[in-house]
Amino acid sequence: MAKVAPRTLSGFMELLPADQIKMEKMMETLRKSYSVYGFAPLDTPIIESAEVLLAKGGGETEKQIYRFNKGDSDLALRFDLTVPLAKFVAANYGSLTFPFRRYQIGKVYRGERAQRGRFREFYQADIDIIGDGKLDIINEAEIPAIIYHTFTALGLKGFKIKVNNRKLLNGFYSLAGMSEKAGDIMRTVDKLDKIGANKVRQLLMNELHMFSHKADDVMDFMAISGTNAEVIAGLERYKGMDPLFDEGLEELKTVTRYLASFGVPEKNFAIDLSIARGLDYYTGTVYETEMTAHPEIGSVCSGGRYDDLAGYYTDKKLPGVGISIGLTRLFYVLNEQGMLSDETVCAPADALVIPMAEDLGYAIAAATALRDAGIRTQLYCEQKKFKAKMSYADKLGIPYVILIGEDEMSENVVAVKNMQSGKQEKLSFSDAAALIKKDMDERAHAAVIKE
Amino acid sequence: MAKVAPRTLSGFMELLPADQIKMEKMMETLRKSYSVYGFAPLDTPIIESAEVLLAKGGGETEKQIYRFNKGDSDLALRFDLTVPLAKFVAANYGSLTFPFRRYQIGKVYRGERAQRGRFREFYQADIDIIGDGKLDIINEAEIPAIIYHTFTALGLKGFKIKVNNRKLLNGFYSLAGMSEKAGDIMRTVDKLDKIGANKVRQLLMNELHMFSHKADDVMDFMAISGTNAEVIAGLERYKGMDPLFDEGLEELKTVTRYLASFGVPEKNFAIDLSIARGLDYYTGTVYETEMTAHPEIGSVCSGGRYDDLAGYYTDKKLPGVGISIGLTRLFYVLNEQGMLSDETVCAPADALVIPMAEDLGYAIAAATALRDAGIRTQLYCEQKKFKAKMSYADKLGIPYVILIGEDEMSENVVAVKNMQSGKQEKLSFSDAAALIKKDMDERAHAAVIKE
Repeated sequence: MAKVAPRTLSGFMELLPADQIKMEKMMETLRKSYSVYGFAPLDTPIIESAEVLLAKGGGETEKQIYRFNKGDSDLALRFDLTVPLAKFVAANYGSLTFPFRRYQIGKVYRGERAQRGRFREFYQADIDIIGDGKLDIINEAEIPAIIYHTFTALGLKGFKIKVNNRKLLNGFYSLAGMSEKAGDIMRTVDKLDKIGANKVRQLLMNELHMFSHKADDVMDFMAISGTNAEVIAGLERYKGMDPLFDEGLEELKTVTRYLASFGVPEKNFAIDLSIARGLDYYTGTVYETEMTAHPEIGSVCSGGRYDDLAGYYTDKKLPGVGISIGLTRLFYVLNEQGMLSDETVCAPADALVIPMAEDLGYAIAAATALRDAGIRTQLYCEQKKFKAKMSYADKLGIPYVILIGEDEMSENVVAVKNMQSGKQEKLSFSDAAALIKKDMDERAHAAVIKE
Repeated sequence: MAKVAPRTLSGFMELLPADQIKMEKMMETLRKSYSVYGFAPLDTPIIESAEVLLAKGGGETEKQIYRFNKGDSDLALRFDLTVPLAKFVAANYGSLTFPFRRYQIGKVYRGERAQRGRFREFYQADIDIIGDGKLDIINEAEIPAIIYHTFTALGLKGFKIKVNNRKLLNGFYSLAGMSEKAGDIMRTVDKLDKIGANKVRQLLMNELHMFSHKADDVMDFMAISGTNAEVIAGLERYKGMDPLFDEGLEELKTVTRYLASFGVPEKNFAIDLSIARGLDYYTGTVYETEMTAHPEIGSVCSGGRYDDLAGYYTDKKLPGVGISIGLTRLFYVLNEQGMLSDETVCAPADALVIPMAEDLGYAIAAATALRDAGIRTQLYCEQKKFKAKMSYADKLGIPYVILIGEDEMSENVVAVKNMQSGKQEKLSFSDAAALIKKDMDERAHAAVIKE
């Protein structure tokens, strides 16, 4: 029979079991963290009608979309989780209770040019809070808490949640008479981290043809930094000249005021006036999250406040606030940096039962007892030499081997071997289960990220 | 702005939050149950090269496949989880340790004619054990235990795991001189449950042109039933005439011998000589699972032993055994039958914190304390009347409301209202957390299926 080469498409992540177990643990942590903040799960189709998916108009994204016909239907694969959310909320408006808080962790598709670390199929992990007509600022203040607790649960310590407010920016540009150029200026200022203040100032003058004193105004504004209190004090100086600016400043003050109550340490938080995010979409608070030791990676969790989730589907005004983690890319980066912990068990099982007597009933009963106690257990019954059986446990990193021979059967015990320490002891079924369970429960607390 | 109607394609399941929470609980139960039996998670791409996906030749399935071009690539969406497993094992043969035990819960795509209860996008939840060259019969004996414990964990009681052996069938047809017609006979006999013995006998004679005594031979064989011991005794009468039959009988005896050790009650198990499953694929034990109260639904978990997982990709002989649950259809059927429990909390949160004082710091700190204790908590800060706030909790079925006014703040407590009993009491943060946690932990034990 002619063989076909079994290959996986480039740009599609497919992990070996030990890595996949880490990925699953990341997803489980996210599900749990989002749930604790009162978000309900949502699962939308990966395929949608192209008309529905592209209702907003895709712009740059449209070229990357996987779009095809099936019968008479013009179909497309989702390229984010926001458009499907908009569709879902618009379609089910009458059945939902607002504010509607949902999380979704799912695969999205973009036919980007394949390159290292870029994926065509990747997981996004999103949360959004959607209001019906209105949505209180406290929802924006809550987002940094969700980011903080989520990354802390994943095991990351060195990260900073950077926050800005679009009203503040738009207000500033308006009072400085730069509203027309605001978009271009924001795109330029966005490069501050990468190219530095001098080069940004030059770009403002050379490319945007700004007078030097105007460019200085922008640079002065962007230079406002320090503790939250210092930044707020710096911003207060611009107060009273533009109502939108004042509104943004009030919002920013509310967001910072409750940080401590929300359990967010100030060291993990910073107001950063240079970030702007998606220019047409966000209208209030915007968020980015930087890994302190790896700023080159860019933001690992971003989002913001928007006023109109689903205008292309419905007349209802649906403001919201949301954030998104690019999970596949985050996993890839953490793995590349050696930041994924092996402390949590990456083996497919906690215990391997190896029967050494002919009748298997006793060994099977032992495996059943361990499984009933919640211990991930494999039963090894292949016809192999003893050494090959032990090597199987070793290769997979299974921490405990349960040996069962005639002796153990007659004594009504099992021989438990700790593969790390080499220690072997005879124990009853229940004592063996308790020993292994205790160790596993301790290891289960290990976070998936180590620094 | 012209609006696009926000619709979801027919044949694609999209659940409202309360139902989705039940679906998530089912998936979590499956992940946990499969893990306890020592299976590692696998996640393969939804898109594969069409050449790779259709290497085996699709037959009937091929027409249903979502296939399309992107640039120069001929792509297709996976239609099951078995072909991607074959690809994965063939491609990563050198990196895997055998027997390789994997589970995968993921969406697959089939462009079937849309009809009620039929889905074009649906979850399968598969496990497989893949051997390298050989695979011991004990792996086949273990499968009923996995099915039993999985459905029991889901909360189902009335189900029967029906087991047969293809060697036994092929051996019987061979010794009866009916090997040529074996496929047709098996397809006819498969209708026994639906049309009864008389009609099957007539079909055998009229459509397959069998002599009446041959048809009687088949019907006599299929009529062997009763307890495991009785069926085995009935089969022993055919022993010694065909080596394949004898091998099949030995295998069936091994599978039944260890049921008790594996913790499977005999009432949930039956040998059923009429089931055959995929005719070209399975070569040993085959499995079906019937919901006792709903035989009309057909098998909710099926599979079997096969000898050649990946012959179209590799020369390696990779025998295996696996089962699959059609999760989306199972969920749909259970929901239709009213068999999904509301006992487990379907609300997006366990507690809703409602601040009634102007300063929100205290209320936020209370919400943070509850969240730190693992309680799924929402903070309600919209500018609404008190009645509307309580109605929000009510509509979503949130079991506890935490009211925080000036009184509570000055006394350093919260007012906890049990929405079901109406009871309200003032408690410290930690007592409130303990009270709610205890209730939630108890409810978390409720299974997702009720009968």
